[in-house]
Amino acid sequence: MSDWMSKDKVHEECGVIGLIGPAGENVSKDLYFGLVALQHRGQESAGISVSDTDGPKGNIETVKGMGLVSEVFQEDDLNRLRGNIGVGHVRYSTTGESSLKNAQPIAMNYIKGSLALVHNGNIMNASALKEEQMYRGQAHYSSSDSEVLAYEIISQRIHTDSIEQAVLAAAAKLKGGYAIIVMSPRKLIAMRDPFGIRPLVLGKREDTYILASESAAIQSVGAKFIRDILPGEIVTVTMGGIQSNKAFCQKQAAHCVFEYIYFARTDSVMDGISVRDARFRAGQALAERDAEREALTPGQTGGSSKGSRVDLVAGVPDSGLIAAEGYSFSSGIPYASVFHKNSYIGRSFIKPTDRERRDAVHMKLSVLPSVVCGKRILLIDDSIVRGTTMREIIKALKKAGAREVHVRISSPPFLYPCYYGTDVPTARQLIAADHSTEDIRKKIGADSLAYLQIEDFRKMTGELPLCTACFDGKYPVS
Amino acid sequence: MSDWMSKDKVHEECGVIGLIGPAGENVSKDLYFGLVALQHRGQESAGISVSDTDGPKGNIETVKGMGLVSEVFQEDDLNRLRGNIGVGHVRYSTTGESSLKNAQPIAMNYIKGSLALVHNGNIMNASALKEEQMYRGQAHYSSSDSEVLAYEIISQRIHTDSIEQAVLAAAAKLKGGYAIIVMSPRKLIAMRDPFGIRPLVLGKREDTYILASESAAIQSVGAKFIRDILPGEIVTVTMGGIQSNKAFCQKQAAHCVFEYIYFARTDSVMDGISVRDARFRAGQALAERDAEREALTPGQTGGSSKGSRVDLVAGVPDSGLIAAEGYSFSSGIPYASVFHKNSYIGRSFIKPTDRERRDAVHMKLSVLPSVVCGKRILLIDDSIVRGTTMREIIKALKKAGAREVHVRISSPPFLYPCYYGTDVPTARQLIAADHSTEDIRKKIGADSLAYLQIEDFRKMTGELPLCTACFDGKYPVS
Amino acid sequence: MSDWMSKDKVHEECGVIGLIGPAGENVSKDLYFGLVALQHRGQESAGISVSDTDGPKGNIETVKGMGLVSEVFQEDDLNRLRGNIGVGHVRYSTTGESSLKNAQPIAMNYIKGSLALVHNGNIMNASALKEEQMYRGQAHYSSSDSEVLAYEIISQRIHTDSIEQAVLAAAAKLKGGYAIIVMSPRKLIAMRDPFGIRPLVLGKREDTYILASESAAIQSVGAKFIRDILPGEIVTVTMGGIQSNKAFCQKQAAHCVFEYIYFARTDSVMDGISVRDARFRAGQALAERDAEREALTPGQTGGSSKGSRVDLVAGVPDSGLIAAEGYSFSSGIPYASVFHKNSYIGRSFIKPTDRERRDAVHMKLSVLPSVVCGKRILLIDDSIVRGTTMREIIKALKKAGAREVHVRISSPPFLYPCYYGTDVPTARQLIAADHSTEDIRKKIGADSLAYLQIEDFRKMTGELPLCTACFDGKYPVS
Amino acid sequence: MSDWMSKDKVHEECGVIGLIGPAGENVSKDLYFGLVALQHRGQESAGISVSDTDGPKGNIETVKGMGLVSEVFQEDDLNRLRGNIGVGHVRYSTTGESSLKNAQPIAMNYIKGSLALVHNGNIMNASALKEEQMYRGQAHYSSSDSEVLAYEIISQRIHTDSIEQAVLAAAAKLKGGYAIIVMSPRKLIAMRDPFGIRPLVLGKREDTYILASESAAIQSVGAKFIRDILPGEIVTVTMGGIQSNKAFCQKQAAHCVFEYIYFARTDSVMDGISVRDARFRAGQALAERDAEREALTPGQTGGSSKGSRVDLVAGVPDSGLIAAEGYSFSSGIPYASVFHKNSYIGRSFIKPTDRERRDAVHMKLSVLPSVVCGKRILLIDDSIVRGTTMREIIKALKKAGAREVHVRISSPPFLYPCYYGTDVPTARQLIAADHSTEDIRKKIGADSLAYLQIEDFRKMTGELPLCTACFDGKYPVS
Repeated sequence: MSDWMSKDKVHEECGVIGLIGPAGENVSKDLYFGLVALQHRGQESAGISVSDTDGPKGNIETVKGMGLVSEVFQEDDLNRLRGNIGVGHVRYSTTGESSLKNAQPIAMNYIKGSLALVHNGNIMNASALKEEQMYRGQAHYSSSDSEVLAYEIISQRIHTDSIEQAVLAAAAKLKGGYAIIVMSPRKLIAMRDPFGIRPLVLGKREDTYILASESAAIQSVGAKFIRDILPGEIVTVTMGGIQSNKAFCQKQAAHCVFEYIYFARTDSVMDGISVRDARFRAGQALAERDAEREALTPGQTGGSSKGSRVDLVAGVPDSGLIAAEGYSFSSGIPYASVFHKNSYIGRSFIKPTDRERRDAVHMKLSVLPSVVCGKRILLIDDSIVRGTTMREIIKALKKAGAREVHVRISSPPFLYPCYYGTDVPTARQLIAADHSTEDIRKKIGADSLAYLQIEDFRKMTGELPLCTACFDGKYPVS
Repeated sequence: MSDWMSKDKVHEECGVIGLIGPAGENVSKDLYFGLVALQHRGQESAGISVSDTDGPKGNIETVKGMGLVSEVFQEDDLNRLRGNIGVGHVRYSTTGESSLKNAQPIAMNYIKGSLALVHNGNIMNASALKEEQMYRGQAHYSSSDSEVLAYEIISQRIHTDSIEQAVLAAAAKLKGGYAIIVMSPRKLIAMRDPFGIRPLVLGKREDTYILASESAAIQSVGAKFIRDILPGEIVTVTMGGIQSNKAFCQKQAAHCVFEYIYFARTDSVMDGISVRDARFRAGQALAERDAEREALTPGQTGGSSKGSRVDLVAGVPDSGLIAAEGYSFSSGIPYASVFHKNSYIGRSFIKPTDRERRDAVHMKLSVLPSVVCGKRILLIDDSIVRGTTMREIIKALKKAGAREVHVRISSPPFLYPCYYGTDVPTARQLIAADHSTEDIRKKIGADSLAYLQIEDFRKMTGELPLCTACFDGKYPVS
Repeated sequence: MSDWMSKDKVHEECGVIGLIGPAGENVSKDLYFGLVALQHRGQESAGISVSDTDGPKGNIETVKGMGLVSEVFQEDDLNRLRGNIGVGHVRYSTTGESSLKNAQPIAMNYIKGSLALVHNGNIMNASALKEEQMYRGQAHYSSSDSEVLAYEIISQRIHTDSIEQAVLAAAAKLKGGYAIIVMSPRKLIAMRDPFGIRPLVLGKREDTYILASESAAIQSVGAKFIRDILPGEIVTVTMGGIQSNKAFCQKQAAHCVFEYIYFARTDSVMDGISVRDARFRAGQALAERDAEREALTPGQTGGSSKGSRVDLVAGVPDSGLIAAEGYSFSSGIPYASVFHKNSYIGRSFIKPTDRERRDAVHMKLSVLPSVVCGKRILLIDDSIVRGTTMREIIKALKKAGAREVHVRISSPPFLYPCYYGTDVPTARQLIAADHSTEDIRKKIGADSLAYLQIEDFRKMTGELPLCTACFDGKYPVS
Repeated sequence: MSDWMSKDKVHEECGVIGLIGPAGENVSKDLYFGLVALQHRGQESAGISVSDTDGPKGNIETVKGMGLVSEVFQEDDLNRLRGNIGVGHVRYSTTGESSLKNAQPIAMNYIKGSLALVHNGNIMNASALKEEQMYRGQAHYSSSDSEVLAYEIISQRIHTDSIEQAVLAAAAKLKGGYAIIVMSPRKLIAMRDPFGIRPLVLGKREDTYILASESAAIQSVGAKFIRDILPGEIVTVTMGGIQSNKAFCQKQAAHCVFEYIYFARTDSVMDGISVRDARFRAGQALAERDAEREALTPGQTGGSSKGSRVDLVAGVPDSGLIAAEGYSFSSGIPYASVFHKNSYIGRSFIKPTDRERRDAVHMKLSVLPSVVCGKRILLIDDSIVRGTTMREIIKALKKAGAREVHVRISSPPFLYPCYYGTDVPTARQLIAADHSTEDIRKKIGADSLAYLQIEDFRKMTGELPLCTACFDGKYPVS
């Protein structure tokens, strides 16, 4: 999947961040930089809530809006948002409509104070919880799971002695894949679902703690990575330090494979695995399979030509580049950039119509003719969604003189829906759901086509337990 | 030079485009797409002028504004700008202040009609011409060379029978490096300076002609490249076809080397040379010199370590990537991406202060720790301006565990000012002007440092006659 | 009080509107026009919620924002807001902070559907109700009474069979002055507090019913005024017609006198009294008192000169103009405009500082020198808050040559706080609270000063029962 | 003519201002306040140019834009515009298209320095001058007279010793009605056409001189009115004082009558006549004619009813109010406000369509029913352009119960075009051009209709020589 074609984007989630520093410090700008570092996880809306641990209780300030972090927050907003504790969020809708009322953090006042909450993932039993809540008279402004989460915690808080106990009681009722940071005016409470489907990491910079979806956000504020929050762990962070509750931790984990394939930043490390290395090794695995195939049945790889007998290996920017490096490294076939990417195609760009002879693919990606002319190219991307973008890309390569274009995909075909917060499109949109690999190869005009095999995930991420339900339908049993 | 650090940008020019199609067609959207394709040549202001060759004479409509093409033009503007002939411009100030009044096209009404003009380059005798003009009572709104050019043509037009003759007469007076497109309500007249310093190409799509600074713009509107405008050539394009005047053509050409090193798009071809290939070969040339050096004096390359005995070759995104591929190809040392680039650092991004522990370099570029840890890295960029960005990059690589960082620059050091429209900074800003290579190496913290040698330009662009004055002070004699 | 000096504004409330038309009609534009007609009642925020009585249940669309109605709503918004039932609101904060989260309508989803609510007034026991709600787990996003109201209705709805019953049960718990319109996806329910402190009227246009704070809004959509909602009445409006519940109606009413003095539009009629006529008669009452006074003690009216022996009567635009007409009519002294009002002093106007020799009063109001020069002027305004504006006005009149300026105020001095939704400033801000009339006269530089007497309200509004607590401290007993 | 219906606006011109203060002072904010005071003279565009008399020669800074003064200038702009000499302009297009390029001041650099120019009026021989200029090679960016003026002065400046001489030489060639302020970096030169058609006044505040279209602008910056610039006078203002050149002064003046009827502010004084008094006396003249008429032919005034036998006199806000006061004063018939004016109908207001049952007239003006019900009303406005607005107003009055509506217009019917800068619409648009008074009366639905008679201008402005060409076709001979 090419990350520059929003219409083809299927796997979008959210990014969360939380910071608590010494009294008197202001964390709002760190939250801003951290959210910019997490911007790839969601571009629909952004928000920040802050509080002062020494200030009057319940005084949480929130700014949120539609668009990029740099569009939502002006210098003024950051000056106004003052406090030494805060949470932030970037969002791309997976559940709920796309509108301001669904933007996070969710900040609420309740009988024992106030809280703000940020959430990445999907609560599978949100509807049931919401119905319970509504029977108690808790009305909802939004259609987001996050409001359901906030109400669950608030409801528990009435009957419990502390916010930690309330979060624990609420956590016992949740099903799904999630990473949540709850902020009370004095503390941050982070929780990760028992399978560890969604990522959550902890870092530190002097006396300031930081929680975030990815280690890249920790680095973006000059802090050091400490560790991953464990699957099922609930961590309370105050100015005094960290307390861990492992009541919901269990043996089996199932980390979302798609974070490694596509979603996370290449400079992040999750549950001990470098995202970049995983992608590089996926490319290596593809090369090894091509080598095997050729050894077995020379000259017959899903199409008319030998996969390994190509002149150069290239990736679709930016999603296929690292896997292409891995493929090149393993196969010994030279790596080459074959595209110029126009970095000025912003969101306000007026797209060409068909009549205008060009589609947006061509405006964004241009082939380098001197590289591809007369060449057999092995082209890697991380996924094929509808196939239209890949077809345009292959057409452009051939028009520029490429002799052959062999496509390798650094993930298996999507076949099953995700219930844990990754928005895999419905079967109707997924070309793999009702087309054979050969059909897809023909449709996109490739000379050969092969996908990463599910059994090769082991090459990619080693012994790490993965959730691969979207590829094989094996959902973690809860 | 890393293209993502605006404060370090020194070589900025402009991009020009012109289109003429059959009566009834509307070229404004093609001008828009063409300007988006040329956006890398200037982000300060953008403008489009159109006219209808069948419409009332002198009816040129212009829209221009500050900012990116996609910010200046809304759907409404393109609907309003209707006509089958037009010119467009993107600008980064080289002369004149940065304000709307200096934005192009320059559109004027004069005694024999109206004209619009777009211009890339520098008119060395603009001041003298302007003084002459002012003695004739021609007042100036702006401080741009382009207004001087327009007045010169208008002045000549009074005493000549056609706009072509006026342009010819004006051209006879110009000194400098330039590519100009003049639009009268019925025709486009393109001219390139006699040395061919600034680029200008011609393309065609069915009955529509297109003139542009780069071939990439021609492709962006689905047209085919025909040829370069010759140094000194004046070409008149009407709906009837093309007429060439070679009165000012001469033997010696001197094409700006910086277009190949940095400025042009990698998918453009200029004066017969692919920009991508030139950069790739510059990388190859660097590798060959390193190999020679090592053969001569093993283990002694401007620093403490052998340049060729490294583990991987990497480029600074995006300006050093292609040269790094060339270096890797020639040396056999593996190519690797060592940075994650955050593509959401837009112009509205609030930059961190020093106190906030991070500089903008770190927000934009993050090191991939798993790639660089324990490695000796050969890092390529296209230039060093002040050295501060490179120092930060090397610091980040070493912090992530890189054992050695050897820097290669795919151009020689800048030492001389440019008088032809490339805005080389004054000596005070250029680190190379008053520092030896060894001093610079120490300042940026590299383990070795080497530049491309002037004599290696031949490897890069073959026999193509170049203007290399900014490196060697040899200015084309006019 | 001059309505053009926002800093002097004390009596600001809100405006509410509701419309229900035949299936298939779209009421959003009528809501827009109605809100524009009510804009004088609040300029801080505006909002509209609509639903389709034939559409899926619970589908209420809301758009709200900070600023004027014409700033908040663009043509796009009105096209998107489609439905035959809707409510709208304009707000000036009386309780709660000034921010988007306090804007109305409040739209919520609850166990039995969805509702939107608009509210003008003040719920005196809101804090107690809110505490009850929070103990039930109902969290609050905003600090507004309106969210408390919505929760109260939702809480009752769980245990009742219809929204009407829920509203009735909620109404039984409310104390304060209010006019509320609740919108369920199928009906509008309007309620007015038992004393009728805040206004609410009903109109009709063909098969469309309209509820609004003022009759002027009914006229603004081409509808006819039917009647006032009675104090304590709860009216349910469906497409089938109107049903009235008078369970909370009582004998004693106490309509807010300030609607007649200042707040309502002059073309509105409330509880049977024309606002314009009330103001005109207040002016007449002032004239009569001056005549009496002069008869008793000629030449001694709180200052150095006889009140009735003046050359002309003028009003401070626009708040004093109608009373000035009434004074002129009764006294026979000619009416004259003595000010030019600059209607281009918008909210983005940059105000002059003291050093710049001018205050905003002078930019907005200029004296007509030819009218006032050498004249004795009787000047009427509706109130004096801090006195600074009046002092500037008198200074300007005298500078332009006015011989004497006698001030008459068409209301008594404010002395007591309002608990029913009219934001009377604290005693510290009110000049009348700690200054005698003579002190104030001296402070503002008037030659004489007199206020309307409380007993003259009878002349103004006849037998209409009024709440005059802000003047006499006699609060309606609930 | 009702000033709140832009579609009916016919007589729009421009407003000019110039200030020069002691070295070190900053006049930009005074220019801003002055332009806000002149905003009624043009709302299309606004601009300010400033310079520092001690600064480097030729350094004129200009900011201009489309819209109101308060929209064009932000605090930032005024901080940037620093200097002790400056000019400003508000514009409504009378010649030239409505676009930014026609906005003023016109600021140009020429051989002997730089100048900025602001202009109100019309240069009748602009086309001929422009052709001459173009033959000299002077190209034009805009279609405005002001650019022609600037070029004329620049052209003269080449052959003369001073800017004053250049202005004098240029003035000798101009025909038309105009008020011009030319700013060189050291001085202001003001000129008024020989008939004094367009107004221009001079004021002073300590050591600061101010020139402006109206005395109201002088007062708005806390300065004192000194005198009118004489017809034909050229005044040079430097920090040292004022020099007057009367070479073009002549015996006959012809001041534009429309400034008194409609265009100027009521608090301005022009050529010795108070605008307010002129309007008041026009109302008196109408009353006297009605009285005469009734004496001669009782009960027969252009309609079915006696003009003077009415119950009240009212004006259409705001253009007819002062004349209504004058009529009331002379006739003894009570004056009454009969409309509520909604001051929140801004330019972003979405106008109702016919289908929406309301036109913009009703949104802006509402009748006060209690005042007009059962009454015979004499209604005054300053003009009738197309008649549609007046028809709607009368319809609304009658619907509210008015028994009779007698219309009086405080100017004669427009019959002739204006060549001096007042944009009288073409005959086709003017109802008076091809309809008798009786026809118009029927069309607007009035019970009687009468206009001010040309011979009554004497009552209005005394012996002041007027240009009344738009009413009688008697153009000042030049």
